[in-house]
Amino acid sequence: MPNLTETLRLLESEHWQSLETLFTLLRQKSISATGEGVRDCANLLVEIMQNQGITARVMETAGLPVVYGEVLHDATAPTMLIYGHYDVQPEDPLDAWLTPPFEPTVRDGRIYGRGGTDNKGQLLAHVLAVGALRRTGWPALNVKFLFDGEEESGSPNLPAFLEQHRDLFQADFAYSSDGPKHESGRPVVFFGVRGLLYVELVIKGAKQDFHSGNRGGVLPLPAWQLVHLLSQLRDEQGRCLLPGFYDDVIPPTAFEEQLLSTLPFQKDEFLRITGLPDTELDAATYWRKLMFEPTCNICGLTSGYQGDGSKTIIPAKASAKIDMRLVPNQDPEQIMQSLRDWLAEHAPQVELISHGSYLPSRTPIEQPVCQSIIRAVAEAYGQEPVIQPRLGGSAPDYLLTKHLGLPSIWAPYANADGNNHSPNEKMGVQDYLQGIRCSAVVLTRVAESLAKNRDE
Amino acid sequence: MPNLTETLRLLESEHWQSLETLFTLLRQKSISATGEGVRDCANLLVEIMQNQGITARVMETAGLPVVYGEVLHDATAPTMLIYGHYDVQPEDPLDAWLTPPFEPTVRDGRIYGRGGTDNKGQLLAHVLAVGALRRTGWPALNVKFLFDGEEESGSPNLPAFLEQHRDLFQADFAYSSDGPKHESGRPVVFFGVRGLLYVELVIKGAKQDFHSGNRGGVLPLPAWQLVHLLSQLRDEQGRCLLPGFYDDVIPPTAFEEQLLSTLPFQKDEFLRITGLPDTELDAATYWRKLMFEPTCNICGLTSGYQGDGSKTIIPAKASAKIDMRLVPNQDPEQIMQSLRDWLAEHAPQVELISHGSYLPSRTPIEQPVCQSIIRAVAEAYGQEPVIQPRLGGSAPDYLLTKHLGLPSIWAPYANADGNNHSPNEKMGVQDYLQGIRCSAVVLTRVAESLAKNRDE
Repeated sequence: MPNLTETLRLLESEHWQSLETLFTLLRQKSISATGEGVRDCANLLVEIMQNQGITARVMETAGLPVVYGEVLHDATAPTMLIYGHYDVQPEDPLDAWLTPPFEPTVRDGRIYGRGGTDNKGQLLAHVLAVGALRRTGWPALNVKFLFDGEEESGSPNLPAFLEQHRDLFQADFAYSSDGPKHESGRPVVFFGVRGLLYVELVIKGAKQDFHSGNRGGVLPLPAWQLVHLLSQLRDEQGRCLLPGFYDDVIPPTAFEEQLLSTLPFQKDEFLRITGLPDTELDAATYWRKLMFEPTCNICGLTSGYQGDGSKTIIPAKASAKIDMRLVPNQDPEQIMQSLRDWLAEHAPQVELISHGSYLPSRTPIEQPVCQSIIRAVAEAYGQEPVIQPRLGGSAPDYLLTKHLGLPSIWAPYANADGNNHSPNEKMGVQDYLQGIRCSAVVLTRVAESLAKNRDE
Repeated sequence: MPNLTETLRLLESEHWQSLETLFTLLRQKSISATGEGVRDCANLLVEIMQNQGITARVMETAGLPVVYGEVLHDATAPTMLIYGHYDVQPEDPLDAWLTPPFEPTVRDGRIYGRGGTDNKGQLLAHVLAVGALRRTGWPALNVKFLFDGEEESGSPNLPAFLEQHRDLFQADFAYSSDGPKHESGRPVVFFGVRGLLYVELVIKGAKQDFHSGNRGGVLPLPAWQLVHLLSQLRDEQGRCLLPGFYDDVIPPTAFEEQLLSTLPFQKDEFLRITGLPDTELDAATYWRKLMFEPTCNICGLTSGYQGDGSKTIIPAKASAKIDMRLVPNQDPEQIMQSLRDWLAEHAPQVELISHGSYLPSRTPIEQPVCQSIIRAVAEAYGQEPVIQPRLGGSAPDYLLTKHLGLPSIWAPYANADGNNHSPNEKMGVQDYLQGIRCSAVVLTRVAESLAKNRDE
């Protein structure tokens, strides 16, 4: 019989072990951009899951592996699928880290290290909650784990993998944790994500860099070509100029519009975290831009000399890495085609590289499972969560909603100033421990609530 | 008594020692952008010069040191000042070097290593020629050496240094070697250089990189700001849009125009060296652009993620390093002021950093010393040199022409495909040895010719 009080007491007595387990996982590199350490991390994660009483194994994809796990109750119980990713972003710029990215260090109640918030700390919270429930009484629920090894590279091989293992991943709903809680510390539950299209534009000139004096005036200039091309891709007001880019954007529903006005925005906290002197954003604009509007963002701009001081060269090459965050019903494939056509017309010399894409996704909030998760999260944190129709960030949520056909609900466990994708990524110790607690409450209450619904 | 035949025979017998001396100098790093190894290189160069019978010493400037040397004949003889620089460009991108940049390696008759052509091989040619003349018979000439340790950083401290030591550097003319010979292998003599203004534009946004999903749409975007700013600095046709930029450009004189039509341009060779599929340039256009037109070139463009694959961030910062090659009578200080004003109006958030400047320079070719150097170079190489009014590259020639008031004549000793400022910089073994020979011939013949002019 499940006994939530006992489970939470056990978790509290094991705080130190929970931290140690996270440190072990953070020490293991798993950079999917380069592949460094990813397989070793998959094996380590399987070992951690097995220690928690979860049947787990590494499963091959066409790229980096998936970690699968399950705790099966019985065939009549509902099945929760937990998605997470154990790969991390590259650590650069390395010299901006106060402590080494793969040597987790606790300072001021935060665990500094790459992957602490995104996503190792969050996925481990589910694993450890399941482990505690295994020992104190298991709810009437089947749980399956799908831990992605290529999320930070756009999960290019996961769609084919899920097609191949469709039966294994059958479930009734998905519950996952990624992204940040609200800046005020309030928990968040969200029901969809922005999609993503990540491309790189490369322009080449002469076969190598040349002296900018000896050849200045007589060589093609890829850096200038890139500047002029980009200036025509997005205007100064921030509007993407790619033909058709906004055609399939659907405006928020009346219900979503209504939620917009309830979402909290603490300007002071936003300014403190970002270090900006001021902002013209108000709450509704902030959330509208983050949830309902697409972006066209330069993630990286590279040409020629990158060091200190001066070097007088004509760079042989210039490139831009661009990510576009997409909203329903924008389709990354259609936008990629539009970009291809646009380049063919405007700059046929440009090489276009795709670094992956996600479809945007949404789960209607009105369903019972959504409501019971909202209530469980409120119970776990002792305060009402912020109900966010959509996350500004991306996750391969479309794989859950579209490929597996599941309602997909997300509750982030990380602090808002977690610096994910940045130097000095940091997971709050309390945020992490509360996340484990939240998973235990959600697993227990959702099982109860769905059983009750079924009985009624 | 000078005996040129004997000098050249001695030099020929010492080919191997001449190469060894260059290898020793190339092994010593001297990157003025970072300061790495520069002082050690100055000391090494003094030692090499002393071994050649030259009175030499390190002299302090407000920055990195100058190496001074002299061989004084008598007060009635004319004095030649030889300028060169012993500092080098940074070696990056390191992984593009086939052999390590500071381990000189001979392949296919070329000495690969940073500084081989720019400028250690060229300045050493003068030193070794003087050393051979010391042993075989010295011409009626005083020689002074001014070896700069900050040329690749724009020689920011040399003007003040020369003001301070004006008497020491009194001379009748300057003779120096930098830049490349013609692509056909023909020697070149040139009589001025383009000037330089090197600036960096830096735009900052939030205090650090942020996740492009979680914050996409609500943060300032320095990379896009930079793109739009740059697109307004120079148009797609290559014209700099900075107010007043072209105001002081003086057109070529009739004599220079006439020289333009005599300058050789081998299109096939140009395409081979640059790897370009084709070019619309003809000879006159090529030389006009290189000698008489200014440039506005991006040397480096940096923002956000620089690695392989993808990283989804909003970069906190974006910067561009820009060098402008200037022609008489453009003044880098005036252009800097115009840039300052333009930024204040268009983009007050931009931080403007100066990485140094050179004034453009020119020496009228009609003077006797110019003519006798042209004849000596022709004798040394056994073919007529290309007479170039000006070099496309920059050198602090204005220090010689404007600060010291000297006619200043340059004869490059390096091969045209020397890759200076680029990976795999390479000095031809024969080009280097011929350079030493050329210095010996020039020193001897110019002394004879100037003595004869004086007697007449």
